[in-house]
Amino acid sequence: MIAEIIAVGNELISGSVVDTNSAFVGRPLSLFGLHVQYHTTVGDNIEDIQWALRTASQRSDVAVICGGLGPTADDVTTEAAARCMGTDLVLDEMALDALRRRFQQIGVEMTPNNEKQARLPRGAVVMLNPWGSAAAFMIRNGRCRQFFLPGVPKELRNLLLHEVIPRLQAEIAPGVVFLNKSLRVFGLTESKIDQMLSHINWDTGHARLASLPHFPEIELKITSSGSKETEAKRALEDMENQVREVLNDYIFTTDQDTMEGRVGELMRKRCWTLAVAESCTGGLVGHRITQISGSSDYFDRGLVTYSNRSKVEILGVPEDILHRYGAVSRPTALAMARGARERSGSHVGLATTGIAGPTGGGAEKPVGTVFIAIDTAETSVCRHYLFHGDRDRIKTVTAQTALDLLRKFLLGRLDRGTHMYEVRNSD
Amino acid sequence: MIAEIIAVGNELISGSVVDTNSAFVGRPLSLFGLHVQYHTTVGDNIEDIQWALRTASQRSDVAVICGGLGPTADDVTTEAAARCMGTDLVLDEMALDALRRRFQQIGVEMTPNNEKQARLPRGAVVMLNPWGSAAAFMIRNGRCRQFFLPGVPKELRNLLLHEVIPRLQAEIAPGVVFLNKSLRVFGLTESKIDQMLSHINWDTGHARLASLPHFPEIELKITSSGSKETEAKRALEDMENQVREVLNDYIFTTDQDTMEGRVGELMRKRCWTLAVAESCTGGLVGHRITQISGSSDYFDRGLVTYSNRSKVEILGVPEDILHRYGAVSRPTALAMARGARERSGSHVGLATTGIAGPTGGGAEKPVGTVFIAIDTAETSVCRHYLFHGDRDRIKTVTAQTALDLLRKFLLGRLDRGTHMYEVRNSD
Repeated sequence: MIAEIIAVGNELISGSVVDTNSAFVGRPLSLFGLHVQYHTTVGDNIEDIQWALRTASQRSDVAVICGGLGPTADDVTTEAAARCMGTDLVLDEMALDALRRRFQQIGVEMTPNNEKQARLPRGAVVMLNPWGSAAAFMIRNGRCRQFFLPGVPKELRNLLLHEVIPRLQAEIAPGVVFLNKSLRVFGLTESKIDQMLSHINWDTGHARLASLPHFPEIELKITSSGSKETEAKRALEDMENQVREVLNDYIFTTDQDTMEGRVGELMRKRCWTLAVAESCTGGLVGHRITQISGSSDYFDRGLVTYSNRSKVEILGVPEDILHRYGAVSRPTALAMARGARERSGSHVGLATTGIAGPTGGGAEKPVGTVFIAIDTAETSVCRHYLFHGDRDRIKTVTAQTALDLLRKFLLGRLDRGTHMYEVRNSD
Repeated sequence: MIAEIIAVGNELISGSVVDTNSAFVGRPLSLFGLHVQYHTTVGDNIEDIQWALRTASQRSDVAVICGGLGPTADDVTTEAAARCMGTDLVLDEMALDALRRRFQQIGVEMTPNNEKQARLPRGAVVMLNPWGSAAAFMIRNGRCRQFFLPGVPKELRNLLLHEVIPRLQAEIAPGVVFLNKSLRVFGLTESKIDQMLSHINWDTGHARLASLPHFPEIELKITSSGSKETEAKRALEDMENQVREVLNDYIFTTDQDTMEGRVGELMRKRCWTLAVAESCTGGLVGHRITQISGSSDYFDRGLVTYSNRSKVEILGVPEDILHRYGAVSRPTALAMARGARERSGSHVGLATTGIAGPTGGGAEKPVGTVFIAIDTAETSVCRHYLFHGDRDRIKTVTAQTALDLLRKFLLGRLDRGTHMYEVRNSD
């Protein structure tokens, strides 16, 4: 069966906003054996939207339309849908009621133009939207089920997962159970993963594997299906086990969890506190760690020692180490991690120092040279990396590598899943 | 005149990659009075691509087709273009020659399948691509000029700016000079800007104004045209002056410059050094500042004092201030900024403290409550804000506001361009 995605918005057409919705919608649709064949984007223009809806009604079984459901006059998707169906807009009492409750809840007075969001094409099936004010709806247009969702990403995503997908699944593949799971991988390139998993059948008919790069990570998505939950589950687990057997410690977490979430979980488990000393990452490691609500339970402090003087003053890095080995070196990274830990009285110190570029590189220590160290009362380790790319990419991959190194350390698996860009047997 | 953008690629259709090319192509096209009306995405499938090309040939004057020009068998855009024109593919000697030079240059042996990239539809106009291996080309299909570009963003962008735009300009608007400039605005919502600029004519025929939100900033883009450079320049300056007269200090920089770039420039001008104390931003202010190459000239250190103990130990915040007013308060923010400055021997201290949520808020200090302070030997100021949104948004807007406050301070214009979310006359 054929599916298509229609994005509506002048801001998309003009290029002032990148359309991330279409990509998000595309992925779960393919779970049901739906073949997504077209994406179309049109502006907030009734004729253009009507053209897109009519085209979809002739060639697709499912269309997801994103955007143009807002309260202002320039949002005309609902009007276009009514015209395309040759019908008018009627006030939907259930949608109006939900709208009133929504405004009451957020303590904002409802203005008359908001009522527009409860006016839907006659015959439309309403899908309530507790994540926002625009009611979503479904229309049967020719052979095509057309789902109209608001363009606000958070609302769109929730409605897609909680309203659209279950309806489609029940209708298109009744009795079939679909499951999916993402394994998040770091420290390998996509082509290296391809090579390592080349002996695996990526599509068994019951389970499929797909690799999706999101720099600096790779997502390995497994989807499976079966006539019973146990069947789908077994197919998924089989595939997962095959992948885990090879990639093992390169898999840092699953599904919607993040590297900083996983590190936080491991820190809590140990009841440890952390102090971070950053040079080249400039605060990015601290920023990532504090993206997690409640991180104050284990994150004590971050020390962004950009100048050499601050490394000496705040972290107690011996001046002769800086002088002899330089700020970007193994001894400095180790002294930074130790200083952060000892001076804060934390259980563990984590330090980054490197050359983010584009200037500051040399023959011996080119741009991208990075040292990352971990220090506890019992042990201290330092790893040497050579990363590639511009300043932003080097900072991003350094922060991710530092968190990943801490994760492996907390798991007692420092020697497994060696990072691709690690420099071995160095000074 | 009507333009459209066609993106080709299975990875786009499946949602595994977000299409950023279409947005990038859309913006410069509108400079020429071209009205971009449709974006279409299809997979690497000859029939679907042919359908998209045929549709474009009937409704648009210009189409830019992105992707599917690679050497492998799954890249079929060129083949689809030939079929759509009812012609065959012929080896283009100029393209082949460029391809050979390219491979020689990068020191890689040319494989037979690379020759495919020099086979173009008979009658196509070649555009050489020194940024990659795929030759780009142009075809006249019905009323529509169809430009075929590789999907690799770097190659696409260079070819668009250096080949497509000059050709279009020469053909569609010969003798017309186009200029553009972006004013970057922070501290106002888009609707507030609309309201403040409601007395201005946003489209005079010679100059146009467009507002493009990129959270947390708003970009105001001015485009102008004229038969002479001086004419286009005058129209642009007229519009810019009108906007600046109203928005004034809310405009923090222009074009591709960033907030952290502007702050860096002002710090250099004063020959000052900076120490930052961060609580709720967790390192994000330091990360932003160090995105600028050479920031080590003015950024001495960042102190991410997440725990109360670290605020006392590293910054010397008096315990009784923390006890009496709490960590999120005006006196604490001021003490943090002072401690950062004095203890580092820097010229200026900048501090953030607040409640990023989703937990930790109360009736008196709800989630989003933030204090930002600046301290120098001569003066100290603190501002109180109430921001909205999730943890990530509150951290993002707090870091941006801190940098903006420092910018205004360095300009001696702290009292102008008051931030929308500032809480006045507070404790």
